[in-house]
Amino acid sequence: MQEAGIRQSLTSIIPKIEAIVGREHVTTAVEDLLCYAYDATNRHCRPDAVAFPANTDEVSDILRLANEHRFFVVPRGAGTGMTGGALAVQGGLVMVMTRFSRILTIDTDNLVAEVEPGVITGHFQEVVEGKGLFYPPDPSSASYCTLGGNVAECAGGPRAVKYGVTRDYVLGLEVVLPSGEIIRTGVRTAKGVVGYDLTRLMVGSEGTLGVITKIVLRLFPFPEVVRTLSVVFSRIQDAVRTVCEIIRSGVVPRTVEYMDQAAIRCVEDYLNLGLPVDAGAMLLIEVDGSLSAVETAISDLTDICKNCGAYQVHVASSAQEAKDLWRARQAISPALFRLGPDKINEDIVVPRNRIPDMVEWIDDLRKRTGLTIVTFGHAGDGNIHFNIMLDRRDREILEKAESAVEELFRQTIALGGTISGEHGVGITKAPYIGMEIGSAELALMKRIKAVFDPNGILNPGKIF
Amino acid sequence: MQEAGIRQSLTSIIPKIEAIVGREHVTTAVEDLLCYAYDATNRHCRPDAVAFPANTDEVSDILRLANEHRFFVVPRGAGTGMTGGALAVQGGLVMVMTRFSRILTIDTDNLVAEVEPGVITGHFQEVVEGKGLFYPPDPSSASYCTLGGNVAECAGGPRAVKYGVTRDYVLGLEVVLPSGEIIRTGVRTAKGVVGYDLTRLMVGSEGTLGVITKIVLRLFPFPEVVRTLSVVFSRIQDAVRTVCEIIRSGVVPRTVEYMDQAAIRCVEDYLNLGLPVDAGAMLLIEVDGSLSAVETAISDLTDICKNCGAYQVHVASSAQEAKDLWRARQAISPALFRLGPDKINEDIVVPRNRIPDMVEWIDDLRKRTGLTIVTFGHAGDGNIHFNIMLDRRDREILEKAESAVEELFRQTIALGGTISGEHGVGITKAPYIGMEIGSAELALMKRIKAVFDPNGILNPGKIF
Repeated sequence: MQEAGIRQSLTSIIPKIEAIVGREHVTTAVEDLLCYAYDATNRHCRPDAVAFPANTDEVSDILRLANEHRFFVVPRGAGTGMTGGALAVQGGLVMVMTRFSRILTIDTDNLVAEVEPGVITGHFQEVVEGKGLFYPPDPSSASYCTLGGNVAECAGGPRAVKYGVTRDYVLGLEVVLPSGEIIRTGVRTAKGVVGYDLTRLMVGSEGTLGVITKIVLRLFPFPEVVRTLSVVFSRIQDAVRTVCEIIRSGVVPRTVEYMDQAAIRCVEDYLNLGLPVDAGAMLLIEVDGSLSAVETAISDLTDICKNCGAYQVHVASSAQEAKDLWRARQAISPALFRLGPDKINEDIVVPRNRIPDMVEWIDDLRKRTGLTIVTFGHAGDGNIHFNIMLDRRDREILEKAESAVEELFRQTIALGGTISGEHGVGITKAPYIGMEIGSAELALMKRIKAVFDPNGILNPGKIF
Repeated sequence: MQEAGIRQSLTSIIPKIEAIVGREHVTTAVEDLLCYAYDATNRHCRPDAVAFPANTDEVSDILRLANEHRFFVVPRGAGTGMTGGALAVQGGLVMVMTRFSRILTIDTDNLVAEVEPGVITGHFQEVVEGKGLFYPPDPSSASYCTLGGNVAECAGGPRAVKYGVTRDYVLGLEVVLPSGEIIRTGVRTAKGVVGYDLTRLMVGSEGTLGVITKIVLRLFPFPEVVRTLSVVFSRIQDAVRTVCEIIRSGVVPRTVEYMDQAAIRCVEDYLNLGLPVDAGAMLLIEVDGSLSAVETAISDLTDICKNCGAYQVHVASSAQEAKDLWRARQAISPALFRLGPDKINEDIVVPRNRIPDMVEWIDDLRKRTGLTIVTFGHAGDGNIHFNIMLDRRDREILEKAESAVEELFRQTIALGGTISGEHGVGITKAPYIGMEIGSAELALMKRIKAVFDPNGILNPGKIF
């Protein structure tokens, strides 16, 4: 979908972009373009140029230029997105936000921080932890993804069970609109309801409504105690039933992650951590809070798990042991490539009590299709990461996989779920958005997009 | 501000409205119009007619008719709003949503409920409590306000310190757009990021972007234990300093309410509960969670309060005693009318550590102006309810009060705050919105309004 009046080449505009950000912060060298051509979807879209602005005015000037000369601008953080949000699918200028790397304030009195969008999420977490504070959202890519990307995609992570997702932490933003206008949204206080909620409209808008240049984030006090439990089951059905029982019981763990047998075996093969390769499934549960509250929770959780058929409930006895367990969880994504050179990764959510149905359905799909399917994810939220490992060059398998994904989405919607829990729509799910969102709603979203970006210069081809 | 082409009288349209909702559900009788002419601002705007639709299609048909014949429609819940959101300031049809009174589902497995907007908040809380669940938002008007109104205004309440505001509980909505189109937003699951966040755009939009006809709400397990503490200080400055110390300590009470001396005396005079009328200020603190966690929190809080100069820290020993303390808190608003026949009520928020500055500034304002000023509110959020009691017929005092409010807002913004924490903008704060929101942001909001409501038929004259 090429917008009317959008230019194909940036060559004549480069000097103007250089005049804005400085010659050393623009590149058109092929080797550089290739570096900014991909994201975690492993698709490649070579931009025409890459610019690295350093402040809000530079972002604004670039966007004004883009409207004047009608070229596409694609904002980008660390490129760790799972649905192609940062890909220049129609060429144009990739605007890399990594020079916006300052933590501007950490207000320990009011539990609020102001940051630039290029700050690495994991770095920010370490810095606030050093001040006794806690920023809960923890996408698996936390050690290299940026807070700006997290806001644009509304990133989640294991701790969402108790602490919610990025949306729940963004109090306010500074945004450069596609027109180049600079706006400030939201508040720097605990509450605020003045005017329409532009803040949450920006969160999860996948870089299509504006470029985020500052973020005001809410923080929590760092929890006194954190404990990790690994729970092993013979049967996956027992594991997922346990998840429902935990939520129903009123205990609120901060994470309830699950790995199926294929995921366990894959990671064990990769890291040799001594994982139970004959288990049907494993849960990785974390609880936090005061020492007494955590002890009570562990005892309650142990009972629930055993009653649901767990044959091993183990509380990590040291920080190192807990770290190893999380290392296993975080290694799933890379380890999967032992099963095939390419991955189709989906991120569906169903109501928590429908996870057993979904798991059963996936098992049947695996049998029916013979595809290599691995599932793991944030079971406490009903959020399942569904992976098909394959070689994309095998056309027959690829077609089978694509049709399996479509079936998966239909089943997800049938169970009352959503086709994206925390990865967004981007380009990979755009073909399926109509399964979940009706035509009136999509038309409304497109009209909102047109209000923000009348010339369609910002991040084209995404979402719809 | 009269929109172009909007009619002044509904007389000829009434039969068409009757055809939609039934003759018995439309009225133009003066005594009925007067009943729907006011809200908690105590201002009166007589509508031309009042209709009581019972389902989504009827709402849709009325809005289509309004576009065809160009008349104003003002949606209304229980009329408990504090800023005039439900007032027909330019006449037209008031659409009362109280017949949408069904709790459709309470899903105890997934901790989700689906309700109609006319359900009374307090009733909903009781019903979910009966199933061991908890809906935390607790506006003071909970026993008569509606969930639809809560969503439209993004209502808060004392428990926001720990549990957030209405926004944090709305997973999805069914909305009739001003055009009459019916849309469904959001998800029925714990997570979801597909398309723009229309759900949060609707929350707090004060009935200007659409009429809410269904609400999907997130629930929590009901807390095991709740305890209430009353803490008494000689000096208000010590009380507000205590609030900062509590938040900084990492203890997270669910409420930290404060009452100044004027509020204490006023309530005592009204209810004779034995409140400490010589105290400079009182804090009402509530903690919830497991028994052990609550006990630890009470001990920590007692230490903090005493170290900050509290001369009495009392833990309510029975549910009845706790209820009496809350009765005192909830009686402030009605009790204030002992100090004057009219009330100007404002709802500002400052960063928590600026409350001492704000309280000092208000004290100075009281001395400078001689106005009867009473403050109380959600100190744990930095959210202060500022009240001037007066007789509006006294023009001199009224002018002095209005200028004091303007000064208050300027000071709030200067301290990094917001002019509305949980009451919205409506008509009472509309003249001041430009103090907080810039012209680019306001222009963007107006363009969004135009996308939703091109003919300007829905709830005109509000926010901006």
